[in-house]
Formats: sequence, structure tokens, C-alpha cells
Amino acid sequence: MNPHEAGDRVPVTDRGLLYGDGLFETMRVWQGTVPLLPDHLARLASGLARLGFQSLQPSILSDAVSRSLAEDSTAEGVLKLIVTRGDGGRGYAPPVPARSRLLVTRHPLPAWRDDLSSKGVRCGRCQTLLGRSPATAGLKHLSRIEQVLGAAEVAAAGWDEGLMCDEAGQVIEGTRANVFAVVGGVLVTPALDQSGVAGVLRERVLSWAKRVGMDVEIRPLAYDALMMADEIFLSNSVFGLWPVAELGEARWDTFPLCVKAGEGLAGEGIPWLA
Amino acid sequence: MNPHEAGDRVPVTDRGLLYGDGLFETMRVWQGTVPLLPDHLARLASGLARLGFQSLQPSILSDAVSRSLAEDSTAEGVLKLIVTRGDGGRGYAPPVPARSRLLVTRHPLPAWRDDLSSKGVRCGRCQTLLGRSPATAGLKHLSRIEQVLGAAEVAAAGWDEGLMCDEAGQVIEGTRANVFAVVGGVLVTPALDQSGVAGVLRERVLSWAKRVGMDVEIRPLAYDALMMADEIFLSNSVFGLWPVAELGEARWDTFPLCVKAGEGLAGEGIPWLA
Repeated sequence: MNPHEAGDRVPVTDRGLLYGDGLFETMRVWQGTVPLLPDHLARLASGLARLGFQSLQPSILSDAVSRSLAEDSTAEGVLKLIVTRGDGGRGYAPPVPARSRLLVTRHPLPAWRDDLSSKGVRCGRCQTLLGRSPATAGLKHLSRIEQVLGAAEVAAAGWDEGLMCDEAGQVIEGTRANVFAVVGGVLVTPALDQSGVAGVLRERVLSWAKRVGMDVEIRPLAYDALMMADEIFLSNSVFGLWPVAELGEARWDTFPLCVKAGEGLAGEGIPWLA
Repeated sequence: MNPHEAGDRVPVTDRGLLYGDGLFETMRVWQGTVPLLPDHLARLASGLARLGFQSLQPSILSDAVSRSLAEDSTAEGVLKLIVTRGDGGRGYAPPVPARSRLLVTRHPLPAWRDDLSSKGVRCGRCQTLLGRSPATAGLKHLSRIEQVLGAAEVAAAGWDEGLMCDEAGQVIEGTRANVFAVVGGVLVTPALDQSGVAGVLRERVLSWAKRVGMDVEIRPLAYDALMMADEIFLSNSVFGLWPVAELGEARWDTFPLCVKAGEGLAGEGIPWLA
């Protein structure tokens, strides 16, 4: 069953609207192409399976992306793909079968200062906690009210980004980025089996680090321990890698691993990390 | 700033769709009126304040309900009110100011067997856990992916309802109902300051119990302890009160407090509990 394809409006019966019952991907458009498309589509397919959506032929999604790129030839920007569980009656239980709805939208690159990638970003700790929910952890689903509240804190504080923790005080991620720390020469990033979104660029950073022979640990990262890290950086497939210059009272002014990862990944098909 | 009022479609820029950034109320229509309207509007106003929405004049919401009742005179059914944070650009941070969007929809009463209120319901324990997230706990927000997965479990198992727990094994609620237990003559219901939706009917049950002089405790309720309760019942402002006849291996066949609460509340303006 092919998905509905939405124009610029969706019915008020859409379960993405009613219950946050859907997934999305936010992709960087670079010179008129989406270099990380295979990574995004693989994550989306995995998420659809975990949520029990009907499987969508990968070609349906990649064709929709191709059509968007052909229709709007803006060379740089963002392409967003949303898949909801389509229409349902009232009630949380998904209809069986459900006919998904597919939305493709295009956006300009968000505004950010040019020097963030070189000088680093100012971060703080969000008070909004991330709940621990294994069934949905890792997924880029549409139920993002926690990130909305976290992002409102970031805006109110004037930070570039905010780190979000679980109730145990473990750092999980930024409001819109994954987080890496270098601790004693080891690259550490939090596990995302209880909370958080498993970013496409996070996977590429981990693969790169292993390929260059770096020790990598995926483990809990307490906020207090993070403050003592040699280096911290954030990953997001749209903005790339941002080193952290400030976090609470802590300061960093060199980010050698972040620079090295950016150079390495730029050479592996992610040119905006150069 | 008055809210947008949606017809049967919303723009794909709506933050309810994009991020689950909104709240809803599901209200029972009885003889062409909404008897619990003040309770629902009070909860909605409290939720809007907690999420940092612009305040909406209560008359805007009650007028929208009145218009719906005038336009569709179906005497029995469900009226659903959704308030989203309206349109925004890409990115989690809410626009400031944000112009809310208001949706009012009408639905038939859900189908359920007539004997559930007298004979009780068959329940099981959902494997999907509810994350603990104080900033959003208690709210009936649109980010309901956990309830969607819980309800899919209920449907697959053929239960009438499923109980959802947090990671500590504390029962929080059903997928679409609050839960009460009678334990040694005390009425117990879980606290909802970490997870769950604070139901309008739950508040009325608690008020009634105090008024009739019953001991009431709002405290953690371990699933294993719940199985030993003298009586369990569920509350939802649409279906009312449902006693629990089966939960896992446990069975109950009399529900004296549930019956008494239903009679008491029916006499206090909730006639469908009779």
C-alpha cells in the first residue's frame, strides 16, 4: 500500500498531529544533492519497523526525495521527510492496516554564526529532563515535547545549544545534536538505548574513530564528569560538528579531535564538515 | 492574539504535527451538553501555562465548544479540543510570540461492550514503559508515542485495557485511563508528577472519596502490590469507571467501591457513571 503524499496541509485525522505517531529525517542538501541520503533512509526504515509501521519500499522514499530536488533546485538547504501513521479514528491504537502519510518539505539552512565550527559553542544544562523509555529510545519520532521545552530553555538563556540529561544526571544529548567527549584519549558518547535520538552523523563519527584506531566507549556520561573532559563536541547532520567552548563554568579553547574528525569525514563524503 | 481556528486540515508547518507541541482534551457529550467542560478547560489552561503557551481567554475555548454543539446537535458522543503552538519554522524552539491553533472535532462514542461497567474489564501489563519526565508529567500533550505503542499491545493481546509502568515497575496508568486500587480500605492512586496524564475524572473520584470520608493515598503503586489489591478500577471521562475483573493471573468479581463511586459521582453531575 503506497503512502498518502501530503501537499502543504494534512487532515486533522492524521496520527502524526493527533499523537506524535510518526518519524522524521532532517537532511542537509549540498550542491543540489543529499549526500547522507542512504544513512537517513536506513535509519528511517529501522524506526518504521520498530514502531510497527507497514514497510515502505525504500524506492518510494528515495523517489520522493529525488522529485523534491528536481522541483526545487535550491542548491543548499534542508530537506525534511516526515512519515506519519496516516489517518485513524479517535483512540491511540494504530489502525491495522494503516496507510502512512509522507511529507517532504524544503527549508533554508538555519542561521548560525560562521565561527561556531572553529571557535566553539556556548552550552548550558537544560533543566528539562529526558524520560527513559526503551521502546522509543534512539528514534527520531514526532513526540518531541521534551526537546521543545529544552530548546525554549536554550533560547531563553541565549546559549548556542543545551545539554539534556536523564533523571540520574547522565548526559544524553543536546536538544538537536548528539554529544561526544574525549576523556583520557578515549572517545566517549552516551548510549541511546533508554533516551535520545541516534543521529546519522553520530554513527559516522563512531565509524571514523574506529577506522583511525581510536578507543571508543559507548557508556553513561555523567554531567559532572563531562565538565572534566579534555574536549567535547556536538554532531548534527545539518550543521556538522560543533566543538564546545563553554559548558557551565568550564571552558575549552582547543578541539583537536573535533577538527580531525571533521577533516576525516569531509573526505568521506560529508563536505560541509571541512 | 486569538488562535487560528482549523477546519479539517492543518498546514504542515503546524508544531502539533511537527513536534507533538500541543495539548488536547477529550470530552463526553451527554444530552447535547458537555457536563465536565469546566474541569476540562481548567486542566487545559493549566497545561498551556506549564508549556509556556500564550494564555488563551477561557471564553475563546468555551465559545468554540458551544459553536460545535450548536452546529452538530448529536446528543451523545465525544468532543475533542486540540490546541497546538501553531506554525513555526524548522527547529524545536517555539516562536515568540506563537499564535496557537485551535481544533474542535466531534466523534461518536467509542464502541465497548455494555457489560464492562458491571462485569469488569480484562487487563494486562504493557511492556512499553512510560518515561519519567517531570516537565511534561500530568499533561495531556500531543507527544503520545508511548501510549500508541501501549495501545497496540492492548489490541494485539485482546485486552480491554493495559496498565503501563515506569522502569521501576510502578504502575502509572492505563493507556487511556487512570487507575485506582483499594488496599486495606484505603483508596490508592499513583502520583503523576513523573509520568502519566492527570485525568479530569481522577480528580473527581479523589474529591468524592475525601468527601465521603475515605482515606486516600497518592503514592507509588508497584505492579506486584496492585495484584494483591482488594479492588481495582479505571477512570476515564468518556467511558466513566471500569472495574478490573482480570489482571494477569489475578481475578476480582466484586467491586463495591467502584459501584459506590459511580453512584456518588452520577449524582454530582456525571450521569453516565450511573
